[in-house]
Amino acid sequence: MAVITITSDYGLKDHYVAALKGALHREIDHPYIVDVTHHVQAFNIVEAAFILGNAYHHFPTGTIHLICVDEEALPHKKHLVMKMNGHLFVAANNGVLSMINPDYKPDQLIEIDLRNAPELVSARDIFARVAGHLARGGKTDLLGRAVDDYKKASLPNPVLKEGGKRLIGTVIYVDRFGNLVTNISEKQVLEDAKGRDFSVLLPKGRKPITKIFKHYYEETEDGKAIAIFNAAGLLEVAIFKSGSDTMGGATELLGIRLKDQITIEFI
Amino acid sequence: MAVITITSDYGLKDHYVAALKGALHREIDHPYIVDVTHHVQAFNIVEAAFILGNAYHHFPTGTIHLICVDEEALPHKKHLVMKMNGHLFVAANNGVLSMINPDYKPDQLIEIDLRNAPELVSARDIFARVAGHLARGGKTDLLGRAVDDYKKASLPNPVLKEGGKRLIGTVIYVDRFGNLVTNISEKQVLEDAKGRDFSVLLPKGRKPITKIFKHYYEETEDGKAIAIFNAAGLLEVAIFKSGSDTMGGATELLGIRLKDQITIEFI
Amino acid sequence: MAVITITSDYGLKDHYVAALKGALHREIDHPYIVDVTHHVQAFNIVEAAFILGNAYHHFPTGTIHLICVDEEALPHKKHLVMKMNGHLFVAANNGVLSMINPDYKPDQLIEIDLRNAPELVSARDIFARVAGHLARGGKTDLLGRAVDDYKKASLPNPVLKEGGKRLIGTVIYVDRFGNLVTNISEKQVLEDAKGRDFSVLLPKGRKPITKIFKHYYEETEDGKAIAIFNAAGLLEVAIFKSGSDTMGGATELLGIRLKDQITIEFI
Repeated sequence: MAVITITSDYGLKDHYVAALKGALHREIDHPYIVDVTHHVQAFNIVEAAFILGNAYHHFPTGTIHLICVDEEALPHKKHLVMKMNGHLFVAANNGVLSMINPDYKPDQLIEIDLRNAPELVSARDIFARVAGHLARGGKTDLLGRAVDDYKKASLPNPVLKEGGKRLIGTVIYVDRFGNLVTNISEKQVLEDAKGRDFSVLLPKGRKPITKIFKHYYEETEDGKAIAIFNAAGLLEVAIFKSGSDTMGGATELLGIRLKDQITIEFI
Repeated sequence: MAVITITSDYGLKDHYVAALKGALHREIDHPYIVDVTHHVQAFNIVEAAFILGNAYHHFPTGTIHLICVDEEALPHKKHLVMKMNGHLFVAANNGVLSMINPDYKPDQLIEIDLRNAPELVSARDIFARVAGHLARGGKTDLLGRAVDDYKKASLPNPVLKEGGKRLIGTVIYVDRFGNLVTNISEKQVLEDAKGRDFSVLLPKGRKPITKIFKHYYEETEDGKAIAIFNAAGLLEVAIFKSGSDTMGGATELLGIRLKDQITIEFI
Repeated sequence: MAVITITSDYGLKDHYVAALKGALHREIDHPYIVDVTHHVQAFNIVEAAFILGNAYHHFPTGTIHLICVDEEALPHKKHLVMKMNGHLFVAANNGVLSMINPDYKPDQLIEIDLRNAPELVSARDIFARVAGHLARGGKTDLLGRAVDDYKKASLPNPVLKEGGKRLIGTVIYVDRFGNLVTNISEKQVLEDAKGRDFSVLLPKGRKPITKIFKHYYEETEDGKAIAIFNAAGLLEVAIFKSGSDTMGGATELLGIRLKDQITIEFI
């Protein structure tokens, strides 16, 4: 029996998460459900894709990932099942699927059509029925018709400027520890560097960072801003704290926030 | 093996939820536990009943719902098991059981008496033992003696005034999206309307709402206050946002809060 | 199959908890995972030990407790498995293990060494592999070499002053209900009292408490500060509220906070 994960903007106080889990328990005798997060900002599909994109590949292949953010179907926004990188994703066709892992193309896209179950109206009940079918090993083809394309959306890309001298990115996520995650990937920096060295320019007059760390726990001075390419291959800015053998608090200590600009300067 | 849900005011930081789940794992080999919410306001049985009332019927019949809000037994407040609408509820006799779904009467009420297990003192250990017995399909009768009545409490009812011209209700819940849920049911509005049209009067000089939406995604102007009868049959006030194909933020944008007055005016 | 609990400072928004659970699902066919808390203050091993110390003994013996706070290994901070009081704990050697239950000594300490799995680098992947081995009933010895000692840390101890007349403690935890938990144990008070009576002196000019309650629901006046030895045997200060048949709000009503001084005066 496959694992089912849930990524939502439902929060944990209201009844929404429990109602979905109840529906899953009605469809499946004993489902294996894992919460990815229910704290996506309301309707923020970029954030949903970012969090799920960092989590999904840790699960066994064949896991079913339900994305309950802006999830109600509309005439121009049908429900889709996507096979990608060995996993199954269920979401509305609102762009979120294209942002989970842009390195992979969908292996299959099915537009969900449960015309034999017209009593299922809400995304909750439809997702539960679909998850039940898939968790029992049911074929994706039986859920609707194959489609070629889906709505595409993307994180803002960093922009190469000044004749290739500067790569200008932004902070796209701030994690619980105050680490600043940018949209600048290691891959792009290496491509654009063409062998040159580089430093990381911070906004608000902060001192540039001239060295990229290999590990979170490389030694330096306490309170110093450091940069690292994280597990997802994205540039992260953090503050070194030797006391805890790790980092944290960049957003607080540097005053840098979501959507602020972070620049790579090639030298 | 039946599913066990937990509704509590324990929060998620302290050890209370884990202690209860640990006790359930000691009573039951592999329990199926689902969190409804742990973010009920401390001792607020109205909120607990409201959230669980919206969630319980999505679970399979036979599910066991533990209500851990004001749950310690006292001489005048015993622990009860209630069968209602195919589900089992375990709570202290503090009024919460009567508010979960006022449309149904209890099919059975058992006053829990585990005199053979005097070592069980806390509600945690008693609820875990009771849930274990019920989850294995044990009879309710074995848990204590049947009683005829329980403490009744109720949400504030809307009041019909000015010779039936106005039905005056209040905001009883604000959900994560800022939607304002009132105590005004569709059923009561239709009864009191006697064929008349009606509009929804908002406090703080806000413009009345003259049309009730059928779906959250009916089209209108962005930022406009709309009204809808929600899945629980209660009048909800929300703000239309076309960008997200849905609504939200009424409490923020209209400045209307919990316990504020919402009035139906029949025309 | 043993239960696995997780205590972390990961919070519930980021992908960290789901990534760990995903890794556990890859190691174990259907793991039984219970969250203790993910709201430990970042890197606060005292808080982690306090919360887990209050929760772990409610689980069946043989349960595996993963502690993901300051959990990355370093040359001077290896990963350990500890057997203690019938339970298994997995953590970095940072002092947290010594504070979970100071009444017990470790029955076994194993320094984890997965040299046959060099692909496992992060604490997440190492803990998942170790938990999988242990959950299937694997021997602790196979996970590394036995060691004699571990890093010790401890909660601040209360201090006996003025020739044994005063025992000076501090508030070490404030729970969701605003109850103030101190580091003063019933055991130590009884030892130091030597038959004398005592009262509880509060800071900020608050009225001393002259009686220790036996139960949270002993009757007194509303809003009165009361003291009780809690289930963990520690002195707790709370506010009596008859309305809810229980207590709460001491931190708010008395203005007493974390690290404030609470004194036992023997008379």
